[in-house]
Amino acid sequence: MEKAMTPTPVAPRALPEPTLRRLPWYLAYVSILASQGVEYVSSTAISRKLNVDASQIAKDLSFLSIKGKTRIGYDVAELEHELEEFLGFKRGHNAIIAGVGSLGSALIADKGLQRYGLNIVAGFDISASVTGTRIGNVPVFDISELAECRQLYRAEIGIVAVPAEKAQEVADRLVEAGVKALWNFTPYRIRTEEGIVVTNTSIYAHLAVMYNRIDAQNSPVR
Amino acid sequence: MEKAMTPTPVAPRALPEPTLRRLPWYLAYVSILASQGVEYVSSTAISRKLNVDASQIAKDLSFLSIKGKTRIGYDVAELEHELEEFLGFKRGHNAIIAGVGSLGSALIADKGLQRYGLNIVAGFDISASVTGTRIGNVPVFDISELAECRQLYRAEIGIVAVPAEKAQEVADRLVEAGVKALWNFTPYRIRTEEGIVVTNTSIYAHLAVMYNRIDAQNSPVR
Repeated sequence: MEKAMTPTPVAPRALPEPTLRRLPWYLAYVSILASQGVEYVSSTAISRKLNVDASQIAKDLSFLSIKGKTRIGYDVAELEHELEEFLGFKRGHNAIIAGVGSLGSALIADKGLQRYGLNIVAGFDISASVTGTRIGNVPVFDISELAECRQLYRAEIGIVAVPAEKAQEVADRLVEAGVKALWNFTPYRIRTEEGIVVTNTSIYAHLAVMYNRIDAQNSPVR
Repeated sequence: MEKAMTPTPVAPRALPEPTLRRLPWYLAYVSILASQGVEYVSSTAISRKLNVDASQIAKDLSFLSIKGKTRIGYDVAELEHELEEFLGFKRGHNAIIAGVGSLGSALIADKGLQRYGLNIVAGFDISASVTGTRIGNVPVFDISELAECRQLYRAEIGIVAVPAEKAQEVADRLVEAGVKALWNFTPYRIRTEEGIVVTNTSIYAHLAVMYNRIDAQNSPVR
C-alpha cells in the first residue's frame, strides 16, 4: 500500500438505513477480492457484481474517509479495512441475551457474530434446567440476576430471544437493567422509552415475504 | 364464533414488502390476545400497542378476507387464523439447506421455523465430518447429491448458509437443482436469473445498523 491507513472516525451521525444495509454487501465482496490478492476495484466493477447502481455505490462510500483513484478505483485492502472500522465490526460490543432456547443457544454458539464485533457475555433464562450451566464459554444465569450481571459485564446490548408473549416484559427488564440497545428476534413489536435503540430481526417475517413472492411467481396472473 | 371460517385464498399477488413485514407483528399480538381469551380487538387497540397508525393497520388487513365490526373490531380467533393462513405459515414449504456449520445447524435445530411453515428436509455440506450424519432427524448429504435430493424431497426453497465467498456458487447450484427460491443468510449479494425469489436475511447487516444507531445516540451532536 502506498500510504499508511488513517484511523476511521466513529460515525457520529445516523446514516440512512439502506446505506447501512448495503455497506456490508460491499465489504463481503471486497473481502473476497482481498483474499484473491486483487489490489484495486472500481465502483463500476462492484456495481456489475452486486447489481447496485455505480453512482449509489460512490454515494454510499462517500460517508467513509476513503477516496477512489481516477481510472484505478479503490485500494481493496484499504476499502476492506475502512468498511470494517466504519461499520463497527472491529470494535467489541458486549451483549447479554435473554432466552437461551433453540434460537438463543444458536446465537451464542454462532462464531460469525464475534467476527462482526458482537461479544455475547452472558445468557439469562427462567428455566432451572439451563441456569447455572454454560453454552460454550458463556454462563447462563437466572433472570433475577439480570441487573447485577448487566453492570458487571458492562453490556450495552440486550438480545431478546424469548417467546413473543414475553418479549415486552423482558425488554422492559433489560432496559431497566441499563442496556442502551435491544436486538429483538421475536415477531413482537417491542415499545421502549425514547433513546433506546431497537433493532428488529424477525426471520419469520422474512419467511412471510418469501412465501408471498413464491406464490406470486407461481400464480398465472401477475 | 358466529360464523364458520371460510378458507382464505392463497395471496396470488405480490404484496408490498412493508405490509408483509407488519402482518406478522399483528399475528404475534393477536396470538397473545387469543391465548388470554380476548374475543375482539379493534385496529385502534392494535395501533396503541404496536405503535402503528390505525389507518395503516386497517389498510394492511384489507388484503385479507376479514372484516371488522363497527365499534367491536375484529374477532380475535378469526383474525389469528386468517393471518396464519394468509402468511402461509400453516402450509408446509419444503426446504434444503446448503452449509451446516454453526448457522446452518442452528437453523435446522430451530423449532420456530417449522411452526412458521418451513420444513428443512435435508442439509448439504462439503465436509466429510458432517456428511452422512443427521442433525436431529435431518440427514446431511454431500453437495454432489444436491440435484437428486432436491427432486426426491420436492424442495422449492434453498437456504444458503455457507461462507460468503461460496454464496454465489452454491446459489447457482441450488437453482440448477431446481429450487424456486433462495433464502440467503450470507452478507454476499447473490445474483440469479429472473423468476427466482431471493430473500436476504443478513443478521450482520442488522448489526451494522444497530452499532451506528448506538454511536449516534452516544454522540453529543445529533
